[in-house]
Amino acid sequence: MPPSRRQALLSHIGEFQLIQSIARGFSSGGPSPLIGIGDDAAILPHPASAHLVISTDLLVEDIHFSRGTASLYDIGYKAAVANLSDIAAMGATPTYILVAVALPSPMNYHDWKELYRGLSVPCKAHGVQLVGGDTSASRSSLFLAITILGQVKPNHGLTRGGAKEGDLIYVSGTLGNSKAGLACLTYQASHGKISPLRQPIKFLVGRHLRPTPRIALGRLLSSHRFASAALDLSDGLSGDLRHLCRQSRVGALIQESSLPLSSHLIAYASQMNVDPVPWALHGGEEYELLFTVPPKYQRRLEHTVGQLRIPVTAIGVITPHRSGLRITQQDGTIQKLIPQSYAHFSN
Amino acid sequence: MPPSRRQALLSHIGEFQLIQSIARGFSSGGPSPLIGIGDDAAILPHPASAHLVISTDLLVEDIHFSRGTASLYDIGYKAAVANLSDIAAMGATPTYILVAVALPSPMNYHDWKELYRGLSVPCKAHGVQLVGGDTSASRSSLFLAITILGQVKPNHGLTRGGAKEGDLIYVSGTLGNSKAGLACLTYQASHGKISPLRQPIKFLVGRHLRPTPRIALGRLLSSHRFASAALDLSDGLSGDLRHLCRQSRVGALIQESSLPLSSHLIAYASQMNVDPVPWALHGGEEYELLFTVPPKYQRRLEHTVGQLRIPVTAIGVITPHRSGLRITQQDGTIQKLIPQSYAHFSN
Repeated sequence: MPPSRRQALLSHIGEFQLIQSIARGFSSGGPSPLIGIGDDAAILPHPASAHLVISTDLLVEDIHFSRGTASLYDIGYKAAVANLSDIAAMGATPTYILVAVALPSPMNYHDWKELYRGLSVPCKAHGVQLVGGDTSASRSSLFLAITILGQVKPNHGLTRGGAKEGDLIYVSGTLGNSKAGLACLTYQASHGKISPLRQPIKFLVGRHLRPTPRIALGRLLSSHRFASAALDLSDGLSGDLRHLCRQSRVGALIQESSLPLSSHLIAYASQMNVDPVPWALHGGEEYELLFTVPPKYQRRLEHTVGQLRIPVTAIGVITPHRSGLRITQQDGTIQKLIPQSYAHFSN
Repeated sequence: MPPSRRQALLSHIGEFQLIQSIARGFSSGGPSPLIGIGDDAAILPHPASAHLVISTDLLVEDIHFSRGTASLYDIGYKAAVANLSDIAAMGATPTYILVAVALPSPMNYHDWKELYRGLSVPCKAHGVQLVGGDTSASRSSLFLAITILGQVKPNHGLTRGGAKEGDLIYVSGTLGNSKAGLACLTYQASHGKISPLRQPIKFLVGRHLRPTPRIALGRLLSSHRFASAALDLSDGLSGDLRHLCRQSRVGALIQESSLPLSSHLIAYASQMNVDPVPWALHGGEEYELLFTVPPKYQRRLEHTVGQLRIPVTAIGVITPHRSGLRITQQDGTIQKLIPQSYAHFSN
């Protein structure tokens, strides 16, 4: 494509051609839509043996992301992961995606392609096809609304509401990296590059911009029925644990000493002279899974995830509802755990 | 609810309670979701005998609507109809809806409820349940992204791609009302009330703000297999006819004298001393169905819709692709029909 075309304002291209140009970058694996992009709606096959899983997620400029610390590719990539992660948290298999995007007027075709290229990479990795969408101008901010579909075997979906007293609380991966990565990006944006510790910063920023949806773990938990409850860490451990406890009507006691921290997080926190634990407890956008496991399944779970090399860590135990959320600190004292959730309306 | 509570800023209420408070206003008819609002995703039953239909639609303030000419209730109502209409155009039955909304910060709980109340009315009328959504603040405009689900019998979905040369072109209802209604609202906003012709204006504004999704007609067309192609009139007859012709690789010849105009439109146009035909040809947001019917089904179609009192009018015929879009004018001359589609990026 000649540069003049690539730089063309979206106004000169039109929605019809835009839509046609994007579907190609996504997966063509899995059952094809019977009617795909370009009609009033898509028509999709759905297997008789599965329930339908669906979620919609909204991303608004300067609320959920900033173009100061993320490229359009980054924004698209993470939006796709956030949605895939919701499907993972249900123990389901993702299948199709629909994308609605409102673009501030001076954005050009290249910007638009970058956003979709970012969206397409994690979708393609998980066999997810683009089957619909809508594109509009916006007078102000960039706005992205994604709907993702998936499938799950009847009665195998993981919910937030099944945790029971005595169940073990697990998380996948390591905690706090995304929030620390954002801190790195923000620091660099205002202070310039931080020269030492290149590797830790690269890792942490990578976790912030390119999180991993835990699709395989979610499917494993649902197919083996290991988990009594699950959700993904988007608001941060403390906030998401509160969601799980509310819906299950239980309490939780977690161990600060058990929180899985990456060596990169520890190195960066030490360099910056900050405590990494608050990042691990309250940092959002991790897209790890938080789940509860009845003690009788502990051994089988750990054996199975060990064989598949999926990192999971037991960080606490489900307690009676009246006990609320608590944490055993490094010195052995037990404190209330006060969630610091990301609240959309709190500014 | 005390006024202080009703006027409370959304910031003091929080997303969790908001989500719980809204699902009640929507339909509880049809098969309930297995997991509804409040988890990472909804889990829905899906009958083995149906294909899944899905569409997503984006509405952006000052692009698709203006708060100068529409209340939040109006905006919600029409957003729901636009989505229901997409399902109607596929000949499908709507089932579930998901709503993503970004609200400018000074909006309060009452505003938010009004938007959802508008959304709920047409949904309830068509048995559509709210099963998910996302709510966010917005730094600027109001954004609304709706995803609607439906079901259709395998191989019965109506698409834009099946029209054949010789098929008759039909529209439901009367044309141009929505655009004329918007003209009334815009005129009134800048000039104050127009005193005579109260009834026509009420009708036209009503068609603009409270369009009717043609669900029953769409289902009838698909179940009897009357239509070879269909879509809903959202961009205006000329633009939507072009979509149909492009995807079917055909041309079309319509008769200006056959265009169905309401007596109210004719009265208002006469009063304002304008020609109503351009409104009928190019006015968007009608949410009537445009469809093509093989001549052998004409008699059965007209008999069936007559019995059900669904107004449809034959306005032309499908021609070879090379003929393009044409219109026979009142004086008998045939002219090219130049679409004046609503183009998102044209400004």
